Amino acid sequence: MTDTIEPLFSPASIAIVGATNRPNSVGQAVMRNLIQGEFQGVLYPVHPKLKSIYGVKAYPTLTAIPDSIDLAVIIVKPEVVPDLLDEAKGKGVKGAVIITAGFKEIGGKGAELEDQIKAIAARNNIRLVGPNCLGIINTNKDVRMNASFARLMPRPGNIGFISQSGALCTSVLDYAAGRKIGFSKFISFGNKADVSEIDLLRYLGDDPETKVICMYLEDLSAGQEFIRVASEISWNKGKPILAVKSGTSSEGAKAAASHTGSLVGSDSAYDAIFLQSGIQRVEGINELFHYAMAFSRQPLPKGRRIAIVTNAGGPGIMATDAAIRHGLKLAAFTDETTAALKASLPPTANIHNPVDVIGDATHERYESALKTVMQDPNVDGAIVLLTPQAMTDILETAQIVPNVAKQTDKPILCSFMGIVDVSEGVAHLESNGIPNYVFPEAASRTMAAMVRFGERLNIGNRVPAGYAVRRDEVSRLINAKLNGNLSCYLPEREATELLNCYGLPLLTSRLVSDSTQIAAAMEAMRAPVAMKIVSKDIVHKVDAGGVKLNITDADQAKQAFEEIVANGLRFKADARIDGVLMQEMAGKGVEVIIGCARDSKFGPIVMFGLGGTLVEALKDVTFRLAPMFIASAENMIRSIKTFNILQGVRGNPPSDLGAIRECILRVSTLVADHPEISELDINPLIVYPEGKGAVVADCRIMLASKQA
Amino acid sequence: MTDTIEPLFSPASIAIVGATNRPNSVGQAVMRNLIQGEFQGVLYPVHPKLKSIYGVKAYPTLTAIPDSIDLAVIIVKPEVVPDLLDEAKGKGVKGAVIITAGFKEIGGKGAELEDQIKAIAARNNIRLVGPNCLGIINTNKDVRMNASFARLMPRPGNIGFISQSGALCTSVLDYAAGRKIGFSKFISFGNKADVSEIDLLRYLGDDPETKVICMYLEDLSAGQEFIRVASEISWNKGKPILAVKSGTSSEGAKAAASHTGSLVGSDSAYDAIFLQSGIQRVEGINELFHYAMAFSRQPLPKGRRIAIVTNAGGPGIMATDAAIRHGLKLAAFTDETTAALKASLPPTANIHNPVDVIGDATHERYESALKTVMQDPNVDGAIVLLTPQAMTDILETAQIVPNVAKQTDKPILCSFMGIVDVSEGVAHLESNGIPNYVFPEAASRTMAAMVRFGERLNIGNRVPAGYAVRRDEVSRLINAKLNGNLSCYLPEREATELLNCYGLPLLTSRLVSDSTQIAAAMEAMRAPVAMKIVSKDIVHKVDAGGVKLNITDADQAKQAFEEIVANGLRFKADARIDGVLMQEMAGKGVEVIIGCARDSKFGPIVMFGLGGTLVEALKDVTFRLAPMFIASAENMIRSIKTFNILQGVRGNPPSDLGAIRECILRVSTLVADHPEISELDINPLIVYPEGKGAVVADCRIMLASKQA
Repeated sequence: MTDTIEPLFSPASIAIVGATNRPNSVGQAVMRNLIQGEFQGVLYPVHPKLKSIYGVKAYPTLTAIPDSIDLAVIIVKPEVVPDLLDEAKGKGVKGAVIITAGFKEIGGKGAELEDQIKAIAARNNIRLVGPNCLGIINTNKDVRMNASFARLMPRPGNIGFISQSGALCTSVLDYAAGRKIGFSKFISFGNKADVSEIDLLRYLGDDPETKVICMYLEDLSAGQEFIRVASEISWNKGKPILAVKSGTSSEGAKAAASHTGSLVGSDSAYDAIFLQSGIQRVEGINELFHYAMAFSRQPLPKGRRIAIVTNAGGPGIMATDAAIRHGLKLAAFTDETTAALKASLPPTANIHNPVDVIGDATHERYESALKTVMQDPNVDGAIVLLTPQAMTDILETAQIVPNVAKQTDKPILCSFMGIVDVSEGVAHLESNGIPNYVFPEAASRTMAAMVRFGERLNIGNRVPAGYAVRRDEVSRLINAKLNGNLSCYLPEREATELLNCYGLPLLTSRLVSDSTQIAAAMEAMRAPVAMKIVSKDIVHKVDAGGVKLNITDADQAKQAFEEIVANGLRFKADARIDGVLMQEMAGKGVEVIIGCARDSKFGPIVMFGLGGTLVEALKDVTFRLAPMFIASAENMIRSIKTFNILQGVRGNPPSDLGAIRECILRVSTLVADHPEISELDINPLIVYPEGKGAVVADCRIMLASKQA
Repeated sequence: MTDTIEPLFSPASIAIVGATNRPNSVGQAVMRNLIQGEFQGVLYPVHPKLKSIYGVKAYPTLTAIPDSIDLAVIIVKPEVVPDLLDEAKGKGVKGAVIITAGFKEIGGKGAELEDQIKAIAARNNIRLVGPNCLGIINTNKDVRMNASFARLMPRPGNIGFISQSGALCTSVLDYAAGRKIGFSKFISFGNKADVSEIDLLRYLGDDPETKVICMYLEDLSAGQEFIRVASEISWNKGKPILAVKSGTSSEGAKAAASHTGSLVGSDSAYDAIFLQSGIQRVEGINELFHYAMAFSRQPLPKGRRIAIVTNAGGPGIMATDAAIRHGLKLAAFTDETTAALKASLPPTANIHNPVDVIGDATHERYESALKTVMQDPNVDGAIVLLTPQAMTDILETAQIVPNVAKQTDKPILCSFMGIVDVSEGVAHLESNGIPNYVFPEAASRTMAAMVRFGERLNIGNRVPAGYAVRRDEVSRLINAKLNGNLSCYLPEREATELLNCYGLPLLTSRLVSDSTQIAAAMEAMRAPVAMKIVSKDIVHKVDAGGVKLNITDADQAKQAFEEIVANGLRFKADARIDGVLMQEMAGKGVEVIIGCARDSKFGPIVMFGLGGTLVEALKDVTFRLAPMFIASAENMIRSIKTFNILQGVRGNPPSDLGAIRECILRVSTLVADHPEISELDINPLIVYPEGKGAVVADCRIMLASKQA
């Protein structure tokens, strides 16, 4: 798949169809960018009249170009694009970047036109980026292609950036220029008529020049495929992916729908997809680049124990607060470290973490303290803070940091706090691979993001669960229940039939028709049991004395059997009694809910949370797309806010997490196997202490025919 | 109080004791700053040998100065300071800024020395700032005093900044210089031997040049006084106060303890204090200035309905997402607005909120759209977004914004997204009173902070609750219970005696000694009731058949009375039976907890939260210092995460919030009146549906003698 995309990014020749010299036009901007960006291949501007543009010979048509063309950049009006794509085939064009807008995003005719160019491109084996995009940029020194109408060519770097919004790209490039952030590839993919975020992920995942992938997304095309591709990159390749996904609020989603031609899916599905992909979802562009700078320039910490070195107490506390808030720990130094710090620092310095080298610290003092803490085996990474005090030698201090960093495989982040006086120092840090943050909080938060990514790399169980299930039987049951209808509701008794085929733990029940069967029945179930009369002639069982609860042994059960039958006959002398249903009673345990809904775009989404009114009020639930890895089910359980209830609070024993995990995975398998299950609720699943399992105490299923 | 502080900030003459011309010394920096800052009064450097410093005549001692002195800035070694303060009295000195370090923050001798200078200053009527501080700055054009060793003199502005960390000040000044943020007063108050954050708050609250107060705090000296002063400023004067309080984590607090000589209190007390003071607590310096820029430059929004105007869809969605996340609403435009937008914008523009003037928008198009939405009565404020696209006229667009802002009393915030290309536009915005944020999220978050502050201004009930209570009786009870002991635990029965005196709703009980009293007793209480035998001879009441539950009427009660007495006598024939205790049974309702702990620094802290295991697991509780305003109790109830439970979820009726409020306030009064109550738990308070009240179902109190 990546093969067919490669020519888009590394073409030997480019035709710019719609190139022009008209000031402030897109056609001029693209041409200027390609030339000023020093494209290493051959440019062929195409213009109906001009002989040349920026001194480069122009051609009246694509066909008129004497050589073969790898890439066509298209800036002409929408109606002309279909014919152009046919013409392009004749010139051997393998890829096209359609900058032109006026397609799906305007609906109606535009959407039809987009379908048309998509089909033509497919037929002609041309891969398309766009339409309705800013263009694409490759900073590789052998390519140097700025095929976009951006105002700026970014500097080379190892961040790959892809964006569904072209306009946002202009701001990102401007921001990156200011912060001296470089990119390997920079791609505005617009309406993704052909090349999608998944293709681009795959490409950047394979790209050796890209160390971190940053994405701005408004929607996703396919959930499970995205998860497959992204999780491979995140975890198997260990390449971090960071994403901003906009349209999280309902108002946001409304705006998205009117902005692009795509429908924005529900946010829980997106959250699930990012979690299952190992993608760090961030709230905005600022955070995106805070993280990207660190991921692209510094090694991952091996643990969460950080050291802080500062020349001021207050900022040291602020960094500590933020570190703890984001889940880091302050490293406890070894005695050797403390002794070394004591020997090298003045008596009023703080030799414990956060290390305060105090206000008159020179760069030598910083260097000695930083070296010492970096060598400590209890330290996984460091944050260096600097306030520009009267005696502070800012640039010199900035110079020692990369030197110390070179001698270690642990990450170092800096916060040289301020803007003006610290600027020279910050520039030195940034051009030497040390990310700097204006204030300490951002440094701590970023270090925490690195720790989280590193920890997740080592999680096992990234495999699907393989349970033996009775799939065909469920298919048959579903067909029978639906019986040609569009939809069908299955109450508890019928829903349990399906759950049973997928091995979910149900309350055992057995119909006994005479008291000799009772002992065996009791044997087969977990006491206590309930006993209920089964008779078509007795509707209100309780009124008829036909129900007994909390039966704990066979003797009690035999006595209850006699009483129930006698009561039944006393209630209605001619009642036909089929027997007595013995059913396990769900004992006391922690109530959880496992559910499933079906997203129109991403298919089945499994939900997990604690049961009960309070949790409903808190909406403390988590989602994953089905099917899922075993690790995903484990993460679901651990990610709810009320997880400590399952761990056992106030002297309660820990719950059987393994049983919950299995139930989630079995439900996940069930709903993935059977697209007719449109909704499912196991509410509650009663979970017993560790080793004692769990049981479905109530459930319901909604079916919808696949045609619906 | 403010009167005695005024001379510190507007002195006509300053003696700089410890001024010098030694390069890179603090004494030189202070002298240089006072001269370069163009101090408008007279400077008198004091140096044992030098004849002049920077051309200003120097004096060997304070006493040698021929004129009287308003302010002494002291930079000499600690040991000399006590004598200096005595000498200063002779020169009429009214205030001193002690920059010198080496006092309380180093403990031992330093702390003793600090106590000494504090006493001398008080005796001599000299107000002290410091010791161990950066100094103070007043940018007022008639004063222009930079009495600090900062590297920079800030530009004039209307933000008052006070900081407990001197080093942080250097970073803040550097940041402010970069962001062109100006200050009215800039104060590093160090160890606050005399002038505290409360004095400074009061001063800045009265200062007409200060429109917003920003604070960096590591601890507070007094809770209730701080609340009194700060809430007066926040709400009665309507002047916003923003605070960063560091040392929130236990690690942070440890660091704080080793950094300053003060003990950092528990974070819940600080949260309570800020909430009760109307102070917006922010997480870091970045957020502090994001908010301060808006509060100091823009009017408050009158509601939460905002309009967004953007030239790019994606950023519009991002701003919307952030706005919703922070509690804002997107304004629904009137038909007139929509029609006007439709008339003036191109057909592909989005005329609904967020308004997308699209990528080729000129400043005229921006102006027309922004004017239109600002005039809409459904709009309370606007956020203007700009991405630097190829056709965007950035500076011109920046110019129209302040023009539109002038014609309205609604706030406008901008996000001209980027750094380099947008810089000229951003500079224009910022120098014309329009705050700009690099990315839209910060603009939305800031607008939400403004809305919150505005809404809280209008909250009523900022008065204490005045309940008639039996204070003396509780004092007598406490003395009796303590009976000379250091501490004493009161179980339910005894604790209720105290609660009863403060009017808390208790389960009514009545001892009946013969059955003729039963009807009246039933009349006086809420059914159902429990009946329990009262006899010193019967310890295990249940075993004796001496307890009956769920009695709902007088007939049942009479029968139960007879049975209980008969059972008692059957159990123990010679038992002396005092009668039967009839006691209301707590019916079903929502369980909440009201508690009190006592902070060693801030006194009684009242806690409120939902009861039960789950809530304990979530730690969903909120704190306020006692005594408190009625509004504080109301806010407590509304601020827990599970508040919707009290509002009635899943068809449950809303709970009696008024009853909860009253209980909180009565507890607050009780614990404020009686410092011997060291801990108190009402757990649970059972709350019934609206209008049905609440009842204390269980409680306990811990007493500690005031000497303890």
